[in-house]
Amino acid sequence: MTATSWIGRSRRRIEGGEKVRGLTRFVADLRIPGMLFARPILSPYPHARIERVDASAARRLPGVVAVLTDQDLGVAHLLARHETSYVGEPVALVVAVDEATAVDAAELVEVRYRELQAVIDPLAALAAGAPLVSDPSGHEGDDAGAHGAAGGGADDTSPRPANMPQRMRFGRGDVEAAWNRADAVVEGNFSIARVYQGYLEPQGCIAEPATDGGVTIHASTQGQFFMRAETAKLLGLAESMVRIVPLPVGGGFGGKILLTEPLAAQAARILGRPVRLTLDRSHDFLLEQPGPAARITLKVGAKRDGTLTGLDANVLYDGGATSGSPVGITGILIGSTYRAPNLRIVSAEVLTHKTPESAYRAPGAPQAFYALESAIDMLARKLQMDPLELRLRNAVVEGDERADGRRWQRVGLVESLERARESQLWRDRASRRDADEGYGVAVGGWPGGIEPAAAGCRIDSDGTLTVQVGAVDLTGTATGFTMIAAETFGIDPAKIRIVTSDTDRAPFSGMSGGSKITYTVGKAVQDAVADAKRQLLELAAERLEAAIGDLVVEDGRVFVRGNPSSGASIAELAQSTMAFASPHRPLLGQGRIAHPESSPGFAVHIVRVQVDRATGVVRPTAYLAVQDVGKALNPAEVEGQIHGGITQGIGRALVEQIVHDAFGQPQHASFLEYAIPHSGEVPPLEVSLVEVPSKLGPFGAKGVGEPPAIPGAAAIANAVEDAAGVRITEIPLTPPRVLAALRASRAGTDAALG
Amino acid sequence: MTATSWIGRSRRRIEGGEKVRGLTRFVADLRIPGMLFARPILSPYPHARIERVDASAARRLPGVVAVLTDQDLGVAHLLARHETSYVGEPVALVVAVDEATAVDAAELVEVRYRELQAVIDPLAALAAGAPLVSDPSGHEGDDAGAHGAAGGGADDTSPRPANMPQRMRFGRGDVEAAWNRADAVVEGNFSIARVYQGYLEPQGCIAEPATDGGVTIHASTQGQFFMRAETAKLLGLAESMVRIVPLPVGGGFGGKILLTEPLAAQAARILGRPVRLTLDRSHDFLLEQPGPAARITLKVGAKRDGTLTGLDANVLYDGGATSGSPVGITGILIGSTYRAPNLRIVSAEVLTHKTPESAYRAPGAPQAFYALESAIDMLARKLQMDPLELRLRNAVVEGDERADGRRWQRVGLVESLERARESQLWRDRASRRDADEGYGVAVGGWPGGIEPAAAGCRIDSDGTLTVQVGAVDLTGTATGFTMIAAETFGIDPAKIRIVTSDTDRAPFSGMSGGSKITYTVGKAVQDAVADAKRQLLELAAERLEAAIGDLVVEDGRVFVRGNPSSGASIAELAQSTMAFASPHRPLLGQGRIAHPESSPGFAVHIVRVQVDRATGVVRPTAYLAVQDVGKALNPAEVEGQIHGGITQGIGRALVEQIVHDAFGQPQHASFLEYAIPHSGEVPPLEVSLVEVPSKLGPFGAKGVGEPPAIPGAAAIANAVEDAAGVRITEIPLTPPRVLAALRASRAGTDAALG
Repeated sequence: MTATSWIGRSRRRIEGGEKVRGLTRFVADLRIPGMLFARPILSPYPHARIERVDASAARRLPGVVAVLTDQDLGVAHLLARHETSYVGEPVALVVAVDEATAVDAAELVEVRYRELQAVIDPLAALAAGAPLVSDPSGHEGDDAGAHGAAGGGADDTSPRPANMPQRMRFGRGDVEAAWNRADAVVEGNFSIARVYQGYLEPQGCIAEPATDGGVTIHASTQGQFFMRAETAKLLGLAESMVRIVPLPVGGGFGGKILLTEPLAAQAARILGRPVRLTLDRSHDFLLEQPGPAARITLKVGAKRDGTLTGLDANVLYDGGATSGSPVGITGILIGSTYRAPNLRIVSAEVLTHKTPESAYRAPGAPQAFYALESAIDMLARKLQMDPLELRLRNAVVEGDERADGRRWQRVGLVESLERARESQLWRDRASRRDADEGYGVAVGGWPGGIEPAAAGCRIDSDGTLTVQVGAVDLTGTATGFTMIAAETFGIDPAKIRIVTSDTDRAPFSGMSGGSKITYTVGKAVQDAVADAKRQLLELAAERLEAAIGDLVVEDGRVFVRGNPSSGASIAELAQSTMAFASPHRPLLGQGRIAHPESSPGFAVHIVRVQVDRATGVVRPTAYLAVQDVGKALNPAEVEGQIHGGITQGIGRALVEQIVHDAFGQPQHASFLEYAIPHSGEVPPLEVSLVEVPSKLGPFGAKGVGEPPAIPGAAAIANAVEDAAGVRITEIPLTPPRVLAALRASRAGTDAALG
Repeated sequence: MTATSWIGRSRRRIEGGEKVRGLTRFVADLRIPGMLFARPILSPYPHARIERVDASAARRLPGVVAVLTDQDLGVAHLLARHETSYVGEPVALVVAVDEATAVDAAELVEVRYRELQAVIDPLAALAAGAPLVSDPSGHEGDDAGAHGAAGGGADDTSPRPANMPQRMRFGRGDVEAAWNRADAVVEGNFSIARVYQGYLEPQGCIAEPATDGGVTIHASTQGQFFMRAETAKLLGLAESMVRIVPLPVGGGFGGKILLTEPLAAQAARILGRPVRLTLDRSHDFLLEQPGPAARITLKVGAKRDGTLTGLDANVLYDGGATSGSPVGITGILIGSTYRAPNLRIVSAEVLTHKTPESAYRAPGAPQAFYALESAIDMLARKLQMDPLELRLRNAVVEGDERADGRRWQRVGLVESLERARESQLWRDRASRRDADEGYGVAVGGWPGGIEPAAAGCRIDSDGTLTVQVGAVDLTGTATGFTMIAAETFGIDPAKIRIVTSDTDRAPFSGMSGGSKITYTVGKAVQDAVADAKRQLLELAAERLEAAIGDLVVEDGRVFVRGNPSSGASIAELAQSTMAFASPHRPLLGQGRIAHPESSPGFAVHIVRVQVDRATGVVRPTAYLAVQDVGKALNPAEVEGQIHGGITQGIGRALVEQIVHDAFGQPQHASFLEYAIPHSGEVPPLEVSLVEVPSKLGPFGAKGVGEPPAIPGAAAIANAVEDAAGVRITEIPLTPPRVLAALRASRAGTDAALG
């Protein structure tokens, strides 16, 4: 490798121009000849028996092709069978020749329900005699596995309550004894709201039947191979009979993994015509699966010098109607960020009659760190210690044991905390402080995902490299691949094309989730490009009658070192492998990787907020994100990722929440009711990148996507206490909650003074 | 390799079912949103100056989007610029919102031409002062290079006439002296007609502009990478900016290589919308480029025992308006089939004001062998020697020198002649002979094409193999790949999918032409599958803790030899390479090949014909094709290929010809005027396969496509002489020609007797 030419220099996203000019074609823009339009009928009840579906009026509407129910589909788990388990559960599917007809016909379908007792509150669901939530998906386990969570130990120490499909336990030492050894112990009960992923493009797909009985699905998806596997399983097909064509994703954040695609696919197979099923925003709010709410009780103790003695946590996820909450990862993260000799963590999930939850950027981590970092801050306050120093004293380093018994590889938590400590924002925190302003700091960490990946690299007849991957271009990953390829090969990035293909054609890649694409697929790309380069040099050595070691690749040419006028252009060499009767083999490199370890990433956020004591409005006024990214391949993109993560963290901290009323009715069905941060609510964002290289990632890169979305809520809550003296343990910190806390605090003060 | 399980056993074509059921979607079935329809305006004059194109009336027609001329296109050679060079040359392109409007509008475009003197007859074109034919394509050289012809020596011994773009010379020894040493010398002047490729699906494509200024072309094509290269060159684009999506080909036979695709592409780029340009049959007859006519003078001498002493040939191709006739290959084939110590061959091309010629199955070979094999038959007759014995005496074997100085690798000509000699049809020729019946034998040979190729093989999570190739499925090649993959891997062919991709995604493959796809791409497939199998065995060895050498793959499982109940399924092993946090790399094999030598193939055809002396109709009544195929991977498919080739040979021999009148007007614009053999005109076909394995082809396979289309005309002409005593040296042997020959012969006999 020669000196870095492309890596580490900010570069515009290759697909950005098309997006800015409105040229990108998303799934809703796609038209397939003969395409039909589907509209789901959604359950209005959280729990009900379906007594009758009368579609006769709908079927009479001209243009209606079919009204499908579970019985028509021939496979389970695509539509509610006998019972509905949440408001928004699809009960039937209207298919018509155009969208307006489908919508009109859906209004004409009469479903007779018999309401059943529903359980909405997760604690109520655990009570003896609570109505049973029967998971409509046939789904089992922990979604976060996809995102890089290590498994924990299933907890079978006592029988699980009926509505609790998952419970895990992590621990070591004697946590009760730890409190005795502690000089300070704090405890909190933390609540985290259910949140919507908030992508701009609602979910959608078009499914086309194949002549062999299989199906092709054009979808906005973060993981074509995962969607293929799951769809095949649901439909009872061999995986190779399902083809997923990944389209540009208009925002995913964990939400674009699998939703209505198998339903559309089965409808298309039954009707023998392409079926489009795209959700409008209101259906998207009802149907799609948000990030889960959790309640976390966390107790932590330390000696006077800040050394932790023990940590005890109880995590309870509200999974909605389907199991899949990230109980393992949350437990592990709570117990693996700071060295605590005594540890007891129980993490569980309860089902309720609400929309199933699913993945949202760093699934399980914002919940874990909101609780953990609030508690650590409370502890620092109690110890009267600098909160950064307390963290530094306990922060994990390479070799430390995680809650699940595994050991940390080298992580950059200490380096990031030190960088944060040196920052202007932190150093000026005492002096630069307006009225009702305060500072908060919090850590966020992500273990990183891993999944095998492959890539190909063809050297083309015009001297360009065509790199084949199976991952969609999400968050600038293709731009990163371009830079990795350019650097590896020694060629201008303009000469590189990244091509993503459908599942029939693409090299395998894991899903875009868990901050693993650059780390894994990026390495496969690097290997494929290096392989192609080796092939090119072999060819050039033969044609130029030179030793491979004497050859260099520069400015699109291969020549003998020191003699640039000798040699041949890459184009010329490649052409010689694509010519009639040529004795030279095509240049087609390949990379196949399976990293034995992930690339954990830590972030430290510092925020300054101002609390309006009259209205309860919390306004961030300065924000610094320090993050260990291993190596910033494309600093602008990494910073962009961090900006987005911070903004989502601010959203979770201050405004975002999906609320169901006591009857299970969701209170949000559009962006009128569901708030996300406005750009005016986001302060200037400062980013500081720490580079503790990973061993296996391309050029030392680590996953950077998840960490910045994690610390925000705790940092803001900590800053609110710094500003206003109140600890709020429930996010979002809405003005009513802040006002209530301020009033309670004043009442307490008044009472004390009184 | 274990014993052959799949190779050599006849197998149905994998794409056959869809074709039979009408499910295959050809280019004319494709609809792309926003697609426009193009209709070319063709020149009615063979040679004219374009004085004015008045499209005002056409443009006023509602639905017309544009009427494009050469000036609008910005690049040359897509439409006639100032002059037209043949009837049918595109002069302008109407683009409209539907096909009917485009056709109507085309009628409204008024082109003012000034007629110029045209030269239609090739001999006239060589005369001093003949009008100059200026090639409208900017094209140079010999199309047959694509099909496997070796280059010959350009002949610069004397200045070439103005309308003669190509002339080559091959020779050795002293051909004049050879006649003195000969006991018999014969000479003939042979004429071969220009013929239409006769595919069922007329040519067509849809071009879509890309946002980066490039273009995607959906095309019925035999060679996506060739089309990409040529289109890029014509449009002045980097090759990677052109993407070719190959669609199922409804017959190609050399005709579906490059025609109107660049024109459609440029129209789409200019208009910013998809443009469909599909030809109706009449436009296809006028625009597409048929196999060329030739005149060949051939003189050959031998001693009494049949040993050839010398061979002298003059070949003159009529290239139409564009150079590209297979002059080299024809010269080489004439001089390389039999050992002749003295050789002189001059092969040239002349341009005329007619549609340019192009490739048609075995370009240059039917012409060569019609002349050669007629002459050899005349020589046998003169020597009173068995025509098969004469051929056997002189047939080339491994190591013999070809006309171009290269040496033959091992060929199966002698083996094929011996097989023919043993055949029932040949042995019974004296006894089984109705009135006016006769037997003819002829040889055909093809040197075979080579071009580098690559392929990929992914082992999928359902235990199937997905094989990636860059060649379209033509003549059952994908079925052959399936069998090669099955045999190589040891897996049921039902578990294999062959995937052809567009030029952005496919591994490189040469064009489907020259009988090289199975020989080259098939070997790349074999290597890719073997590579994937090796990876699978490595994985299995690790997981099963066994030595690779002890493992076998059988019935979809990998297990330790002798212990089938041990082991794991291929699906299970593959799944372990596509799982979260798996340490196993994806299984993705690769093959890259560049054969240093081609796989020449020879065929020997024996035909029995009956000549109707009253009508001149020649009717084949029995047909045997013997062919060396190296190894018949799929015997049914090889026989099918041979059946098709025989039928095309019968067509060339008896009925097919594109005729221009003296004014350059083509006399054929539909299958009403252009005859091809009706199934009732084809006798029962017997096929006998000889297997002299090739060194490099998969399992010894050779190219089989070209040879069966070669010997037919000579075999039939030889049989006609055997039946009716007349030698006809001009094909097709139409009834008038046969009658004329019979009358002339009778007149000669009468005169002699008189």
